Amino acid sequence: MLQKLKLQTTARTLMLDVTGQVQKAVERSGIRSGLACIFTPHTTAGVVINEHDDPDVARDILSTLEKLVPRQGDYRHYEENSDSHIKSTLAGCSQTVIIEDGRLLLGTWQGVFFCEFDGPRQRELWIKIT
Amino acid sequence: MLQKLKLQTTARTLMLDVTGQVQKAVERSGIRSGLACIFTPHTTAGVVINEHDDPDVARDILSTLEKLVPRQGDYRHYEENSDSHIKSTLAGCSQTVIIEDGRLLLGTWQGVFFCEFDGPRQRELWIKIT
Amino acid sequence: MLQKLKLQTTARTLMLDVTGQVQKAVERSGIRSGLACIFTPHTTAGVVINEHDDPDVARDILSTLEKLVPRQGDYRHYEENSDSHIKSTLAGCSQTVIIEDGRLLLGTWQGVFFCEFDGPRQRELWIKIT
Repeated sequence: MLQKLKLQTTARTLMLDVTGQVQKAVERSGIRSGLACIFTPHTTAGVVINEHDDPDVARDILSTLEKLVPRQGDYRHYEENSDSHIKSTLAGCSQTVIIEDGRLLLGTWQGVFFCEFDGPRQRELWIKIT
Repeated sequence: MLQKLKLQTTARTLMLDVTGQVQKAVERSGIRSGLACIFTPHTTAGVVINEHDDPDVARDILSTLEKLVPRQGDYRHYEENSDSHIKSTLAGCSQTVIIEDGRLLLGTWQGVFFCEFDGPRQRELWIKIT
Repeated sequence: MLQKLKLQTTARTLMLDVTGQVQKAVERSGIRSGLACIFTPHTTAGVVINEHDDPDVARDILSTLEKLVPRQGDYRHYEENSDSHIKSTLAGCSQTVIIEDGRLLLGTWQGVFFCEFDGPRQRELWIKIT
């Protein structure tokens, strides 16, 4: 079952906690045991699993990515958002998560984040459960 | 169904657009809905999904990886290609993509790339569709 | 089928070769063909596939991650292990591997590593085979 979520981001870079929305998609699927592929169809965004308790973790991840891949650099891509494409490559555009007993099986501190690297924009997140 | 593609790379580092070949593998499988695991069995290569419209995006990704992980450094691995192993770790050796209506479900600008980090070599790309 | 392995790490950062343990989990599942999702439920750990023949490869991966994401930096997370969360984001918290003929389908030099970025600790690795 494929579900497409729409997301609105509000800054050039941010990590949006979508754990609840992904969990609802799992429940709607009715699938009790399997895998969920959480995939973003954009080339300047990512999907990451990390701590969603202290928002400073997301802040530290984004600021370090910014340091490693600065917005200005020796880039050639004409749209001038090469840093966004590179951050997307490092973060990855999808995560595969275990479904058990009808729920996303995550660790205590883990949440699923949609990572915006070239916003603000309207974005999509696709969830396929098998 | 498992399919093994053979690839020939022509430079030490490059990103080879294999979207068409992976799409053909999906069609050959006859599977209409599911997941495709696109996996490279090499430790100095990767599989990445990013923009395949402007080739400068791949160029910018590779040149930034080169800057972050220079070929020469304080490495110990005796084969002197530690940079290749580390780039492979950052890029990842596989991608999982949604199959719907018998097609790879990718965003408008997304393509699948085989990333060579220690070529030129003959390489393999494995595709398992479930 | 879901299996949970317990791991004990013995240093702040290390890469633990778990290929044999994951292979045993595949055999216990009795599944001959499919996908294995190898997932760690921790936000300061990762799962990586790379060379497990020469241990210097893991050493070089860890020392480069340390250089890119130093332990001390302009971080805000109150637990003072932001570097561990960021390394986990770059490495990824899971890998999806093909199962064929009842075995993990890996390349000649590939092994599966549990990456500890904030040990020593008792950790878990979850394996779901479909």
